[in-house]
Amino acid sequence: MMLCIGDVFDKQEAAAIRREVESLDFVDGRVTAGWAARLVKDNEQADADNNQLKALRARIAERILENELFHAAVRPKALTPLMISRYKPGKQYGTHIDDALMGGLRTDVSFTLFLAEPESYEGGALVVESAAGEQEFKLAAGSMIVYPSTALHRVEAVAKGERLAAVGWARSFIRGSEQREILFDLENARRDIFDLHGKTPVFDLLSKCSANLLRMWAND
Amino acid sequence: MMLCIGDVFDKQEAAAIRREVESLDFVDGRVTAGWAARLVKDNEQADADNNQLKALRARIAERILENELFHAAVRPKALTPLMISRYKPGKQYGTHIDDALMGGLRTDVSFTLFLAEPESYEGGALVVESAAGEQEFKLAAGSMIVYPSTALHRVEAVAKGERLAAVGWARSFIRGSEQREILFDLENARRDIFDLHGKTPVFDLLSKCSANLLRMWAND
Amino acid sequence: MMLCIGDVFDKQEAAAIRREVESLDFVDGRVTAGWAARLVKDNEQADADNNQLKALRARIAERILENELFHAAVRPKALTPLMISRYKPGKQYGTHIDDALMGGLRTDVSFTLFLAEPESYEGGALVVESAAGEQEFKLAAGSMIVYPSTALHRVEAVAKGERLAAVGWARSFIRGSEQREILFDLENARRDIFDLHGKTPVFDLLSKCSANLLRMWAND
Amino acid sequence: MMLCIGDVFDKQEAAAIRREVESLDFVDGRVTAGWAARLVKDNEQADADNNQLKALRARIAERILENELFHAAVRPKALTPLMISRYKPGKQYGTHIDDALMGGLRTDVSFTLFLAEPESYEGGALVVESAAGEQEFKLAAGSMIVYPSTALHRVEAVAKGERLAAVGWARSFIRGSEQREILFDLENARRDIFDLHGKTPVFDLLSKCSANLLRMWAND
Amino acid sequence: MMLCIGDVFDKQEAAAIRREVESLDFVDGRVTAGWAARLVKDNEQADADNNQLKALRARIAERILENELFHAAVRPKALTPLMISRYKPGKQYGTHIDDALMGGLRTDVSFTLFLAEPESYEGGALVVESAAGEQEFKLAAGSMIVYPSTALHRVEAVAKGERLAAVGWARSFIRGSEQREILFDLENARRDIFDLHGKTPVFDLLSKCSANLLRMWAND
Amino acid sequence: MMLCIGDVFDKQEAAAIRREVESLDFVDGRVTAGWAARLVKDNEQADADNNQLKALRARIAERILENELFHAAVRPKALTPLMISRYKPGKQYGTHIDDALMGGLRTDVSFTLFLAEPESYEGGALVVESAAGEQEFKLAAGSMIVYPSTALHRVEAVAKGERLAAVGWARSFIRGSEQREILFDLENARRDIFDLHGKTPVFDLLSKCSANLLRMWAND
Repeated sequence: MMLCIGDVFDKQEAAAIRREVESLDFVDGRVTAGWAARLVKDNEQADADNNQLKALRARIAERILENELFHAAVRPKALTPLMISRYKPGKQYGTHIDDALMGGLRTDVSFTLFLAEPESYEGGALVVESAAGEQEFKLAAGSMIVYPSTALHRVEAVAKGERLAAVGWARSFIRGSEQREILFDLENARRDIFDLHGKTPVFDLLSKCSANLLRMWAND
Repeated sequence: MMLCIGDVFDKQEAAAIRREVESLDFVDGRVTAGWAARLVKDNEQADADNNQLKALRARIAERILENELFHAAVRPKALTPLMISRYKPGKQYGTHIDDALMGGLRTDVSFTLFLAEPESYEGGALVVESAAGEQEFKLAAGSMIVYPSTALHRVEAVAKGERLAAVGWARSFIRGSEQREILFDLENARRDIFDLHGKTPVFDLLSKCSANLLRMWAND
Repeated sequence: MMLCIGDVFDKQEAAAIRREVESLDFVDGRVTAGWAARLVKDNEQADADNNQLKALRARIAERILENELFHAAVRPKALTPLMISRYKPGKQYGTHIDDALMGGLRTDVSFTLFLAEPESYEGGALVVESAAGEQEFKLAAGSMIVYPSTALHRVEAVAKGERLAAVGWARSFIRGSEQREILFDLENARRDIFDLHGKTPVFDLLSKCSANLLRMWAND
Repeated sequence: MMLCIGDVFDKQEAAAIRREVESLDFVDGRVTAGWAARLVKDNEQADADNNQLKALRARIAERILENELFHAAVRPKALTPLMISRYKPGKQYGTHIDDALMGGLRTDVSFTLFLAEPESYEGGALVVESAAGEQEFKLAAGSMIVYPSTALHRVEAVAKGERLAAVGWARSFIRGSEQREILFDLENARRDIFDLHGKTPVFDLLSKCSANLLRMWAND
Repeated sequence: MMLCIGDVFDKQEAAAIRREVESLDFVDGRVTAGWAARLVKDNEQADADNNQLKALRARIAERILENELFHAAVRPKALTPLMISRYKPGKQYGTHIDDALMGGLRTDVSFTLFLAEPESYEGGALVVESAAGEQEFKLAAGSMIVYPSTALHRVEAVAKGERLAAVGWARSFIRGSEQREILFDLENARRDIFDLHGKTPVFDLLSKCSANLLRMWAND
Repeated sequence: MMLCIGDVFDKQEAAAIRREVESLDFVDGRVTAGWAARLVKDNEQADADNNQLKALRARIAERILENELFHAAVRPKALTPLMISRYKPGKQYGTHIDDALMGGLRTDVSFTLFLAEPESYEGGALVVESAAGEQEFKLAAGSMIVYPSTALHRVEAVAKGERLAAVGWARSFIRGSEQREILFDLENARRDIFDLHGKTPVFDLLSKCSANLLRMWAND
């Protein structure tokens, strides 16, 4: 299940993050890539040793984890440390698959939180590849695309301007994307019924189904 | 999930079946038991070669398969051939577990359709054993107890009168009883919502959940 | 995994099928819909009792099953009987989910083989809905869209002309779409390696992986 | 698998715990309930911030985890923090399902350790609901009912006296209740054989089965 | 789990089969091999169209299916049609993996029933490859090696004499070899206990475990 | 999948470890055995309280975890604390199965790192039992045998000299041995292709398959 989540940060907040990021040191992005991804990764990342970055990462992660739509769709148990990536003109990240384990954590869901306004740079779309074709994403600053880590994907070369984004991965309580989708649909139905009709016997039945599917599938 | 289903046949129909059964030949019940069950099975069964029995069995099976509650709770793919069993005074069936495969068919759910009125015989209760204790069932003629085939169970000795029942097994499309219960609850919720509010978006979401869980779990 | 398969039939063959279909009787499409889908299904279908239709269906099914791309992506065990559906102006099929079991057969994969040229009718796109948005498909006559049966979808109202299509479902040997995709990718890699380098030890390893994953996952 | 475990504490110990509990502060039980359960929860709980409570909880948890029957039936990996709940006259807890994740821990098994003698209060039974009907539990002080967290359940209103209990949840190494039951039966058989006949080849075979099923199913 | 089963046929029976096979027509073995196996298969097979062969195959299959050890270890649902293969000097079958589906049937277990006495030919061993090394099998006429179909394997070139064997595959009720092994061990333990001590409560517990594991795992 | 890994330590390193071990205190090996294994365990182990042992254990564990073949075949998440075991003449360890959980950690894979040269002692082979027969392992000092923890096994009595070994267990990210084997084969194929042909589209497909299988199966 792919999902675009708007306004994780509003425009002012995104601009403030951009200003803060400007003062960070950036290093070659290949330092955090696996041996195969290293061959096609050609971007920059904020230096992970920086204390200011750690605080910024924590703030972004907190906001993502508080987002209700993210929570319902992803059921996150934990996030990997976020990376702030920068693509200057000519930079790109070729087709690759993300590692399945990062620091011992399974990566079920990938996300990119766009930090630069799309009209401020040319190129730089995130392209998710599949047998049915490709899907391109280039969202407003502060918005986020969430997609299964199971897809080959790439970031197209930036032609002009600067692409800035926070990228990361979630370890979900729920391993499979089909299971996550069922829980997402069921939870949405259950909430709607509660809002419309209150705690009826139908609501109790759906609460039971939802809790027991979570029990059946959760890796805690 | 255990379930009592009332009035699969009404009292007149049950009486008519009893009369029909009286004209059948009965043989020692051990002929259809596995090597271990044979040691504790001490009852009689209508002779399976009889053509009249075949017609009767088909009629009972058809009625069971048409029962909406049975269908929703069991999701039957097929039934094993029904057995008409008779316990005269002193007869019983000691503690045993039913074979997991009968004629190549997995037995997921067991059922007993009582054919004699409970006040017409003493003893003869079906006793389902579990770690939490025992549950006894002795239902009205025409009513049926449905229980997972995973439990040790027995039929207590008949002290007076005659216990008559049709017993059989269902191969469910859904192997696990926890999964069957979720589908049962979800289907009940979905029907209720349809009856109350029609084909709303919530109804569509629940239809999608229900169909996709069935897809995920069905052994067809 | 969604997949567009071009040229299942070429333009001449598609035109010949259209001519043949014109001579068939059509009936209200609701006759084959489940109780919930019936509320939103508003199209026509070729009458299933017709012998000419049976022959046509068999010919189309055979062609689909011979298609190498379909075979590699779907791993079909069986197809449900195909339906020839017709949408005249004003006709449509509202949002619904396909039944998970049809005639006792699990429906894993849905497909629509377009029979009318897209420029010959207005509207009538197949729309597959998801949390990430909607995808529209309106392919050339003779081409086919294959998609998981797990998605809510609809056929938009036809505004002008006539939409003609063969629709059906496949029971795959492989229940899950993630598993089917892995087998598809692995088989493609294995064939490429064979074409480039022959039966090397690497080829043997991939053959072993591919066969053993199929063994692990196949419902035969 | 439901299970009543007698004498987790003996009568003297239970009385001592009751006296200790009397000195604790109690707060509204809704503070620890999920948003839906809050609507039907109407009881009191010992204030979790209290250090004396923490010591008491640890002592009760230790005793439960040392109980051999609990260990064999539940295979606990961890317990959630215990709650000491009190129902004065008029108090109750309506039908609800327990959350599947509590503090990131999957709740597989629920338990209630009764602390008040059943004759000291009226009402207050724990009622576990199922399609087959309801089961009521109101045990001696010091005894415990263990049941799958997958069931809807309630605590009936107390009419007179005071119901006092420790309630909690276990994260089992074994997710499914059918699997836990098989391991329970197999371990019981294995121990019996050892006691009767010692370390025979049959004992080795059963030890191998038991260890390998645990390996196959354990979420550690 | 690999298993050698001695004396499926005794020496006289094996000799009789050899004489019967001599009168059959043989064809190039590649006719029944998949596209990849064909590259390394270089042997002969009895012509499958022959009616005499059909009768012989049925006789051999019946004997195999009646073998108690085979039944307990393999839990066969069906066998593929047996092939009578012959390797004259210089003939061999290079490293390959068996197809996972043959005629729509999953191949879980492979077997070779040796028909020629091992001293009557040089070379011709069945070699099963694994990461831990290779295992060679060249059994007495009438004996059978049973091995998981998941292994790469080969038949070494025959240097002198003639290797004659019946080979085939079983679709097991139980997909995984670890599961089959647990059922095998448990069934052996259960039978031993019955033989030693009769139908005790321990026997009932093991019967329940065995039946319920079969229920949990059987693909019928 | 069983695997012999040569030269985890070279001869000099193994000799240095032996000298270091000589200065350790040894205690009765039964202190760390489960209640059933205790009956057949008759060896000695280095005293776990010793700080020198802790450092030695850490060094050996580090070397094992750095071994590429071990990593690819086992996919270790964690190792249990290693034991240094010593068998003097007459000592042995009878047939047993290893506990499935040790200190809350699932034991998927067992290993024995031989520390004494095989010609320096008589007897003392590790024997892994199976239905197909037994396999004996007595490797060079510094070499290691890795085998699934699911097998019954024993250490034969030492007749002369002294058997010295480090034994331990790995909790794999991948529970099942069939899954580990597929990942092992696929990773080997992927590396070979990269070495021969670089980062081609086939390499990307295999990287995707490998990462997604790991995602599908990993218990992190």
